[in-house]
Amino acid sequence: MNILVINAGSSSLKYQLINMDGEKVIAKGLCERIGCEGGRLEASNGNGKKYVKEVDMPDHTVAFLEVKNALLSGECKVIDDLSEITAIGHRVVQGGSLFNKSVLIDDEVIKGIESLIDLAPLHNAAHLQGINACTAVFGKDVPQVAVFDNAFHSTMPPEAYIFPIPYEYYEKYKVRRYGFHGTSHRFVSARCAELMGKDITELKIISCHLGNGASITAIKNGKVIDTSMGLTPLDGFMMGTRTGSLDPSVVTYLQEKEGWTPEETSSILNKKSGVLGISGVSNDDRDVRAAAAEGNERAKLARAMQWYQIRKYIGSYIAAMEGVDAIAFAGGLGENTTDLRENICEKFAFMGVEFDREANLTAVKGKEAEITKPGSKIRVFVIPTNEELLIARDTKDIVMALNK
Amino acid sequence: MNILVINAGSSSLKYQLINMDGEKVIAKGLCERIGCEGGRLEASNGNGKKYVKEVDMPDHTVAFLEVKNALLSGECKVIDDLSEITAIGHRVVQGGSLFNKSVLIDDEVIKGIESLIDLAPLHNAAHLQGINACTAVFGKDVPQVAVFDNAFHSTMPPEAYIFPIPYEYYEKYKVRRYGFHGTSHRFVSARCAELMGKDITELKIISCHLGNGASITAIKNGKVIDTSMGLTPLDGFMMGTRTGSLDPSVVTYLQEKEGWTPEETSSILNKKSGVLGISGVSNDDRDVRAAAAEGNERAKLARAMQWYQIRKYIGSYIAAMEGVDAIAFAGGLGENTTDLRENICEKFAFMGVEFDREANLTAVKGKEAEITKPGSKIRVFVIPTNEELLIARDTKDIVMALNK
Repeated sequence: MNILVINAGSSSLKYQLINMDGEKVIAKGLCERIGCEGGRLEASNGNGKKYVKEVDMPDHTVAFLEVKNALLSGECKVIDDLSEITAIGHRVVQGGSLFNKSVLIDDEVIKGIESLIDLAPLHNAAHLQGINACTAVFGKDVPQVAVFDNAFHSTMPPEAYIFPIPYEYYEKYKVRRYGFHGTSHRFVSARCAELMGKDITELKIISCHLGNGASITAIKNGKVIDTSMGLTPLDGFMMGTRTGSLDPSVVTYLQEKEGWTPEETSSILNKKSGVLGISGVSNDDRDVRAAAAEGNERAKLARAMQWYQIRKYIGSYIAAMEGVDAIAFAGGLGENTTDLRENICEKFAFMGVEFDREANLTAVKGKEAEITKPGSKIRVFVIPTNEELLIARDTKDIVMALNK
Repeated sequence: MNILVINAGSSSLKYQLINMDGEKVIAKGLCERIGCEGGRLEASNGNGKKYVKEVDMPDHTVAFLEVKNALLSGECKVIDDLSEITAIGHRVVQGGSLFNKSVLIDDEVIKGIESLIDLAPLHNAAHLQGINACTAVFGKDVPQVAVFDNAFHSTMPPEAYIFPIPYEYYEKYKVRRYGFHGTSHRFVSARCAELMGKDITELKIISCHLGNGASITAIKNGKVIDTSMGLTPLDGFMMGTRTGSLDPSVVTYLQEKEGWTPEETSSILNKKSGVLGISGVSNDDRDVRAAAAEGNERAKLARAMQWYQIRKYIGSYIAAMEGVDAIAFAGGLGENTTDLRENICEKFAFMGVEFDREANLTAVKGKEAEITKPGSKIRVFVIPTNEELLIARDTKDIVMALNK
C-alpha cells in the first residue's frame, strides 16, 4: 500500500510517497513558488535519484499535475499507474476545537477546515487548495485524510489552554491555546516510550521540537497536558524569527512609539524577532553559532537567551507534570545542535540527568540516540521526527477501517 | 530617629512614620482622591487611634499639608515639631537602568526619575509630584531618599532581561525586563535567609509576592537572576486584573477583531483581564473563592489557572537556579490564601517539599511561619512583606552615611 503525504503551503507543496510495507519513502519532492514566476520542482526517488525542473505553476492543481508526472514518468518514476496510490494524507495546521483526531475528508470536513481559516489564515486556506487540487488531479475515488497539527494537543485541560483575557473572547472567537507541531510531538513521544521499553501511559515525557519554529510539549501518561505554542505558532519561547510569549505591554508600547498596525506588529514579531532579531546575523543557528564563535556578542546573547528560555520551559513542565521520566529533542536544531543539548542536559544535572557527552556528539544528522548514561534518573533522547510517516500511518489506519 | 515613608500615586498618597529605634510604626495614613472631588484622609497612630477626614485635596502639596497636620495635631498627633522627622523615604516604581540602589534625592536624581516617566507614565510622574510637594511642605533641609522598586532586580543577566524582539528597540527605547516589587522581594528573601539561619549568599530562594499585582523572583546567592514582571507590571503570570505574559498573536488578533487602539488594548489587558476577566466575578480572591465554593465554574477556572501558572513559574525558576532551598509567600494573597499555598506545596512534593498542613492553616493575617515540616528538603515560608520598613531602613542608612 502506497500513501501520498501532502504538506501544502500557500506557495509551496511538499510530498512523500510512502510504501507502507516497510514504511519506506519511495519518492519525495517539493514544489516552490506556486502562483509566482520562477516555479521549481525538486523530486527524488527512494534510490537517491534526483532531478530539478524549472516550471511555472500558476496554482496548486498545476503543481499536483507536475507531482503526478514526476511519480509516473521521467527519471524518478516510481509507479506505473495512479491506482498504485491507495490514499492521500494531508497535513492540516489548524483543527481548532473541531477536530481532535485524524479524519477522512468529506464535504463536512472541508467546511470545518474552511471555518477555521480565520484562526490560521495562511495555512488552512492553502491546505484546502491542496485538497481540492488533489481531488482534481487524482480523482474523487482516492480517499483523502486530514491529519491536524494540533489534534494531539486536544487533551489539554482548560487551565492550560484558556488565556487570562476576558472570557468573552474565548466564547466569541474561540481564542485559546491550540498548540502546533502535534504530529511531531506525537511521533516523538511514542518513539521515546518505545525506546524506553515502557508503555507511554506510564511515562512523563517532555518533547522538544526545536526547528526554526519550535515548541515544547508536556505529555503525561500519553496525553498532552500543556504545550508552548498558543493561538498561533508565535507563542512559547524564542524561535528563529519569532518572539514567543511576551510582556503584552512591550507590544502596545512599541505600537505607540512606532505607529505599527496590528498586521505590521504581527509581521515584526513573527518574522524579524527571535534569534534573527537579537543576533542581527541570521535565524539559522549554524550562522549564529559561527558568529558567536568569532566573538559576536549579540550572536552569543541570542543563543544564551534561547537556551535559557528552553530550560525554563522544561522546568515549568516538570512542575506541571510533577516530575519527568524523559526529555526528547527533535527538529533541525534539536537533532543537530550538540552544544544546545549539552547545555540543557548539564543544567538539569541537579534533577538527575546524567549526560553522556560522547553519545551527544555523535547524535547528529538524523541519528537516533540516547544522550544520557545508563541509569540516569531522567533519560534524554535525540529522536529524529517524522511527521510524514505518522500522517501516512493515520491515513492507512483510516483507509483500512473503511474497507472493513 | 523617625523616618517618614511615602508612596505617592497619581491620586493617592500612603505614608508611614517609623521610629527606627525599635522599627515601630508610630503613625500611618492614606490620602485618597487627590485632585478629584470627594477627597478623604484616613489616619491612625501607633496606639490604634484612627480618624477620617473628608477634605478636598486639589494637589499633592495640599495632601502633604493634611498629612503634616495629622502628625502634628488632632486626635492622632504623634510629634510636636517637624524637626522630629529626620528624613523622608519615597517609593519610586521605575528606576530604569539608571538606578541600581537607593539614593539621596538631588536635582540630578529628580532629572533621572523624570527621564524615566516614559517607561512608567502613571507612577514616576506621581512620585515626582510627591517629592516636590514634600520639599514644599517639609522644607529643603529634610533629606529625601528614593528607593526604587526595580533596583533589586538590576543584577539580572541579559538573557533574563532582554526581550526577543529586534535588538534595536532595546537600544532605541531601553525596552527590557525591569521587574517590580523589588523592595518586597528584597525584604522577603533577606528575612527568609534569616529565618533559615543561613547567609543569603549560600541560598537559592524563590520569592512569591502575590497580591492583586503579583510577581515571582528567583534569588540565587542573594542576587536576582530573574523576575516575572517585565517592562511594566503587566508581565508574568495571571493576576487580579492583568493577563501576565501572553501569546502576542492574541493581542494583535483581538486588536484586528475589536478595533482596539494600543491604549485600549493596554487598558483591557491591565484592568479587565486575569482573575476578574476569567471569573467574571471579581479580582479579589475572597469573592472568587466564595463563588467557586458555590459551584461557579469560571471562578474555579480562574483560581486553577492562576495556581497552575504560579506553579509553572516556580518550576521554571527552579530550573533557572538549578535547584531551590526555599520558597516564600508574601503579599495579600500569599499571606492569606491557605488553599493556594497548599496546592502549590503539594504539587512540589515530588521535589522534596514536605507540607505542614497545620502550620499553613494558622499562617494568616500577617503571621510569619514556616509551612513545611522539619527536615523538608525544600522549605516553604509565609513572610508578611514590609516594603515601608525597608524603605525606612535604606533612608536611615543613607542619612547616617551623610552625617559621618
